[in-house]
Amino acid sequence: MGTSSALSDGADRKADPMADHRLPEVHSPSSQIVVFPEEAPLRLESGQLLGPLSIAYQTYGTLNADKSNAILICHALTGDQHVANVHPVTGKPGWWDLLVGPGKPVDTNHFFVVCPNILGGCMGSTGPASLNPKTGRPFGLDFPVITIGDIVDAQVRLVDHLGIGELFSVIGGSMGGMQVLEWAARQKGRVATAIPIATAPWHTAQNIAFHEVGRQAVMADPDWRGGNYYEHGVVPKNGLSVARMAAHITYLSEKALQGKFGRNLQDRAARSFSFDADFKIESYLRHQGSTFVDRFDANSYLYITRAMDYFDLEGAHGGKLANAFAGTNTQFCVVSFTSDWLYPTRDSKAIVKALNAVAANVSFVEIESDKGHDAFLLEEPEFHATVRGFLTAAAAKRGLLPHAEAT
Amino acid sequence: MGTSSALSDGADRKADPMADHRLPEVHSPSSQIVVFPEEAPLRLESGQLLGPLSIAYQTYGTLNADKSNAILICHALTGDQHVANVHPVTGKPGWWDLLVGPGKPVDTNHFFVVCPNILGGCMGSTGPASLNPKTGRPFGLDFPVITIGDIVDAQVRLVDHLGIGELFSVIGGSMGGMQVLEWAARQKGRVATAIPIATAPWHTAQNIAFHEVGRQAVMADPDWRGGNYYEHGVVPKNGLSVARMAAHITYLSEKALQGKFGRNLQDRAARSFSFDADFKIESYLRHQGSTFVDRFDANSYLYITRAMDYFDLEGAHGGKLANAFAGTNTQFCVVSFTSDWLYPTRDSKAIVKALNAVAANVSFVEIESDKGHDAFLLEEPEFHATVRGFLTAAAAKRGLLPHAEAT
Repeated sequence: MGTSSALSDGADRKADPMADHRLPEVHSPSSQIVVFPEEAPLRLESGQLLGPLSIAYQTYGTLNADKSNAILICHALTGDQHVANVHPVTGKPGWWDLLVGPGKPVDTNHFFVVCPNILGGCMGSTGPASLNPKTGRPFGLDFPVITIGDIVDAQVRLVDHLGIGELFSVIGGSMGGMQVLEWAARQKGRVATAIPIATAPWHTAQNIAFHEVGRQAVMADPDWRGGNYYEHGVVPKNGLSVARMAAHITYLSEKALQGKFGRNLQDRAARSFSFDADFKIESYLRHQGSTFVDRFDANSYLYITRAMDYFDLEGAHGGKLANAFAGTNTQFCVVSFTSDWLYPTRDSKAIVKALNAVAANVSFVEIESDKGHDAFLLEEPEFHATVRGFLTAAAAKRGLLPHAEAT
Repeated sequence: MGTSSALSDGADRKADPMADHRLPEVHSPSSQIVVFPEEAPLRLESGQLLGPLSIAYQTYGTLNADKSNAILICHALTGDQHVANVHPVTGKPGWWDLLVGPGKPVDTNHFFVVCPNILGGCMGSTGPASLNPKTGRPFGLDFPVITIGDIVDAQVRLVDHLGIGELFSVIGGSMGGMQVLEWAARQKGRVATAIPIATAPWHTAQNIAFHEVGRQAVMADPDWRGGNYYEHGVVPKNGLSVARMAAHITYLSEKALQGKFGRNLQDRAARSFSFDADFKIESYLRHQGSTFVDRFDANSYLYITRAMDYFDLEGAHGGKLANAFAGTNTQFCVVSFTSDWLYPTRDSKAIVKALNAVAANVSFVEIESDKGHDAFLLEEPEFHATVRGFLTAAAAKRGLLPHAEAT
């Protein structure tokens, strides 16, 4: 009888056990990097100081002379700075290659796009896999617990470093959208426009529950070793794989799952009466799990999900979400997708309502889509047209576009 | 920094490692049991023969002289035969204590209620933790993969053994409802009335996906030992706990989660900036996971979820669900709950539509509830009134009730 596990569909990594914990991008990222010295540490919401602080980032397009055409893109939980270039680990196109590039909705012929790997990540910015300067060994669980606000504060350092005063736009989906909201709340006057997409102003009990399952799956893996797996030449790949599988279900709508997989069998004509991956959906999830562990650090997964669970822009502003945006001059475009059950339209409407309460300039678009939460990463013409239209109009108003395109 | 795992909230079971794999109910259940000999094996859908076959079961009330007042109750994934008595392992009331008993909606003053532990279970009926007669050791993964149809066929043996020709009613929720549907489809003429509750005629891709995550969590646990953990004095408790946590999210509505837990903190005034269970929802899920492993066999969890994933009454009847019920004389009462997103009303409506297509006698009730899938186990007066009313009317028509109650 088949007893294949989540990882049996992938290459046999056991042949080279050391390969498991090689995440070379942690220490030498395939992108630009800026290091802020220990003498100028980042003060975290927990009260802890973190320094030195590395921020790895990609840029696309050219910053204009008055530095007024910069767009900051904020990535989601398992994203990174490789928005629109071939990914250095997977060899696949950038995660927002459909949206960002020359002639694309976020047009790098006109805009200077910056995307940093977030604080706590594993693609070159300081995170739990980075070396702890105090010990010369990876932080592991000695890395401080961070928040979305901390992630944004680290990005502010980068934007300062680039000499950019006001960002023309801050754009992000999912957890990227949470960063957009924190930017708007924390950096009033530095965010001309903001596009929070498929996101929420707080994490609900169900959101927290799914993340907690993932964290427990990682921490239940004996190879996690209390977070010190780096030094043992192992990674908690089984646990991380299960965490990814569970999370992946929440990224797709039920209709998308049913349409894409239904009850179709994988490479067989009938049920096997075993625990093999009879169904296509099983095979797909196992693949999602097994490939994820090759590019992502398990502790980063713990820290970033924790930051998301701690996110509560309402709670942080006296229980009134509108307070977060009081006095804002930012022009907002809030986008949600009809079939997103992870951060449903209801959550975007709460953002819009709060913005309306402070008479902010806000447009709201709910995109009809069957693709679930992941719609923000996929081919969605109406969504792309929305982003293009919003940015073009706002840029034209600021004289950022050649005359022909501005009219 | 806290590194508590899913099991740290429970008692320290490590003090007695042997306690971990003691599931005494497997071998000596606290209920009646019937054993069918090896010479009369059960022929499974896979083609395999299984024998000897033990079925452990509970009964409540008294079978009348003409054996016309018997109600079969079918339990759900993690349920068992202890419907309405104190549970021998947990010491808690039976899982349907609210519905079944003297004077209750399923009134044991009038009806003889039988509930067997399902084939593949771990409370006394033959399952993967039972001894394999060929080896004298627990089956483990040598236990054959079973289906909902097989589970029902085993129940038919029990009903035959009790000398009952026609069941007055077959009632079950969730996976219990799948058994109800199989009874109606397979045993036409032996099911006077049927109440499938919060159930579905097939498992969708999303249903399969959640189960696959749970199975992979169990199989990723090194203590699973390829299913042979019994002999090693261990159980894959971490994996099973994570599986239970993931499943539990699907049993509650988002509204119920938000209302019950929201973002409330557990025993603390502020975030701990650690991986402790800061939020009540985290603490609750960890508790659900850790207590489950004390009463349930991990391999049973694999086999039963597999049986559910294989369930497709439409596929088994030539792609037309109505075919399953052609010629039925059973009177159906189909019940769904508005906030059940595991087996939503849509699934119940598919059953009703198929029954209507064969002109079956069917009533359908959608109960307004915030409690999600678990509503069928909870205090839901309208649901209870529906069951009581349906059974009372059907029993009266058959002269099963004293005159005063029949009018």
